[in-house]
Formats: sequence, structure tokens, C-alpha cells
Amino acid sequence: VILYDYFRSSASYRVRIALALKGLAWDAVPIHLLHGGGEQHGEAFRAINPARAVPVLQLADGTLLTQSLAIIEYLDECHPTPPLLPADAVGRARVRALAQIIASDLHPLNNLRVLTYLGQICGLDADKRRDWYQHWTLAGLEAFEVLLARNGSTGRFCHGDMPTLADCCLVPQLFNARRFECPLDHLPIIGRIATECEALPAFISARPELQPGAD
Amino acid sequence: VILYDYFRSSASYRVRIALALKGLAWDAVPIHLLHGGGEQHGEAFRAINPARAVPVLQLADGTLLTQSLAIIEYLDECHPTPPLLPADAVGRARVRALAQIIASDLHPLNNLRVLTYLGQICGLDADKRRDWYQHWTLAGLEAFEVLLARNGSTGRFCHGDMPTLADCCLVPQLFNARRFECPLDHLPIIGRIATECEALPAFISARPELQPGAD
Repeated sequence: VILYDYFRSSASYRVRIALALKGLAWDAVPIHLLHGGGEQHGEAFRAINPARAVPVLQLADGTLLTQSLAIIEYLDECHPTPPLLPADAVGRARVRALAQIIASDLHPLNNLRVLTYLGQICGLDADKRRDWYQHWTLAGLEAFEVLLARNGSTGRFCHGDMPTLADCCLVPQLFNARRFECPLDHLPIIGRIATECEALPAFISARPELQPGAD
Repeated sequence: VILYDYFRSSASYRVRIALALKGLAWDAVPIHLLHGGGEQHGEAFRAINPARAVPVLQLADGTLLTQSLAIIEYLDECHPTPPLLPADAVGRARVRALAQIIASDLHPLNNLRVLTYLGQICGLDADKRRDWYQHWTLAGLEAFEVLLARNGSTGRFCHGDMPTLADCCLVPQLFNARRFECPLDHLPIIGRIATECEALPAFISARPELQPGAD
């Protein structure tokens, strides 16, 4: 498979972790979101994804899959071992909800295109953009922490003792939050789980600085 | 089941459509997002969902499910007829990606909490908030239209000839876009599919103005 990827995109990073957990090899095609005004806006890439976003997974027959969570669910269905979702429906709903706190509530407000719009179109200075970033990051992660604390299914990882889709989303978001110097010390369960994840080879191999095109 | 609901929330609206398509009855508990500074911020509701958001689905045993797409996937797994996802993995990935364009790329930028923050904290006036709203709505819906146009699986509905998770997300977002007077005439496939959906009893019964607590 081919992964259209940007090393610092946390949505791409989720898919890299999932591919690595499944033991699947991939060919990366770096799409640099900053170079030349953003390669994702060029005609060539818009033919691949009209939403102008990474990741895109291209299958052997040329099929193009977009949206990180949809891609990870596809990988989990076609390559069921190790599973990235629990065996029971309530457990799957919980893991998907944790993933969506990050993928729907938190990350969409704090990605590159939004921070750029806030600066260039809304005229927010760096301090106000940092306040914005921290506000939504903490709103999301503090809810995430409560959901981990109050549920007996939380284990070594977000759900039980094996990494799931929720962990694939959490670790990239923490990388992102640290890069923006967001305070995280008051989130001990998240911190403990991140440390568990970050010691695993699959999470290590997916790290941004190890990807082709990292600068 | 009990649905913690707000009539105008497009995330709640998605779940109401899915419940109605499945032929399931639900008891609505309205959580008014504006009254008294927002009932979602009160201690009682934060114990139900620390993310302070609707919808929440409470099962007969008290289990609380959050995040609209996770709830709909749960409903689809436990009540498989009629299916809201295609039978094949690539089709499921496509429908989930369409749903996530709305649930992850578009809606999170344009919901009440974000528009409130832009006005109260960032000091954006009504014109600039409308520009913001339209910018992200059109970015998302224009990509959605291209993905519908370029794929032979688009049928009477977003994917084939039965409503799926993608249609459950599209119709509430269009309701929202019309409310904010966003131009949509240049999106003919979306318009045609919305007309198909809006004629179905399940989509009609889920309409915001027909819910308890609508004002």
C-alpha cells in the first residue's frame, strides 16, 4: 500500500501506528503541507483527495481511502490480528468514542489550516492562537482523562491491555500538544498510557522525526 | 433507550435519523445548550458526559455511549436491519470517510461552542463569524460533492440506493448550513440526495422542530 503522508500530521501519525501494529509495510509519499504554499493544495494531490488532507491510503488496485479513522477501521477489518477494536459492541463504542474525542472534538480545531486561518484571516496574534490551541486541547484531553478514570475497562492502555484505535489517536495528539507547550501534568492516566505506548516498537517506528520528508 | 438530545444539534440529529431508520423508539431528555448558560455545563450533565456534549445514548443497563458516529456504529452492530454501512470493506471505508468529512473536518469548526468562543474571546464580529462558518462549510461540502461525483457507488443516496451513515450526517449538516444562509446551489448531487432523504419518514421524524424542547 501507499500512504500519502506528512510527518507532522497527527492524522497521518495515527495511520502509521495502526499499519505498524498490524505489521504491514507501506511506501510513503510525503506531501509537505508547508512547502510551496502547501503541496496538498496542488492539482495533482487534489485529484487524489479533494479534501486536500493527508492521510490517504492507496490500495494495490488503486482504490483511494481517506480519513484516518475510516482507514484504520478498514485495516482492522482486512487484517484482524492484532485487533484494534474490542470484541464486544459496548467496548467498540467506547473505543470509537475515545478516538472521536480526539478526531472530532479536539484535533479539527487545532490543525495547520485552522491556525493559519486564525492568524491570516482573523488577525489573531501568536498569544491568542496559543490560547485557542490550549483551550480546545485541554477541553478534549480533560474529558478523555475523566472517561478513562471512571471506567473499569481502562487498563494498561486506553481499553484493556492491548493498544486500540483510541491509543492510535491519543499518542499523536500528545506529540502535537507537547510541541505547542500545552500543560499535561494534571492528566496522570493519559500520561501513564502514553508512556506505555511510546515504548512499543510500532509506536516508535511511526514517530514523526523518523519519516521520509521530515525536516 | 434514552437519548440526551438538543433539537438543533446536528450531531444529535444524526443519531435521531439512525434510530428512526432502525425503527427503534427512544425517550428524549432535552439538554438545552443555551438556557441558563448551557445545561451541558452543569454538574448533573457533566456526570453523564464529561465532554459536555450531546448526543449521549443511555442503554437499558445504564451504559452511557457518547460521540454520534460511535453511537450509530453501535446501533448498526446491535440492530443490523436495515444496514447503515455497506457489506464490503472498501464500501464501509468510503461511507465512514464521507461521514467523517462532516463529523471531523466540517462540523467541529462550526458548532455552538466554537462560534461562541470566536465572538466572546476572539472578538470576531457577526460578519467575520459568518465568513468563518461559510469557509469551512463549503470546504467540506465541496470536497464531499467531488467524492460523490467521481465514484460509481454513488446512487440514489450517498452510497447505493439505501441511506447509510453518510446520509445520516449529510442531512443535519445541510439543515445547519441553510440556517446560516450558506450558498449550496453549486452542489447538485448533494442537493439531489438531500431531497431523496428528506422525503423519507425516518428523516422527517428526526427533524429539529419536531423534537421535545424545540423552541
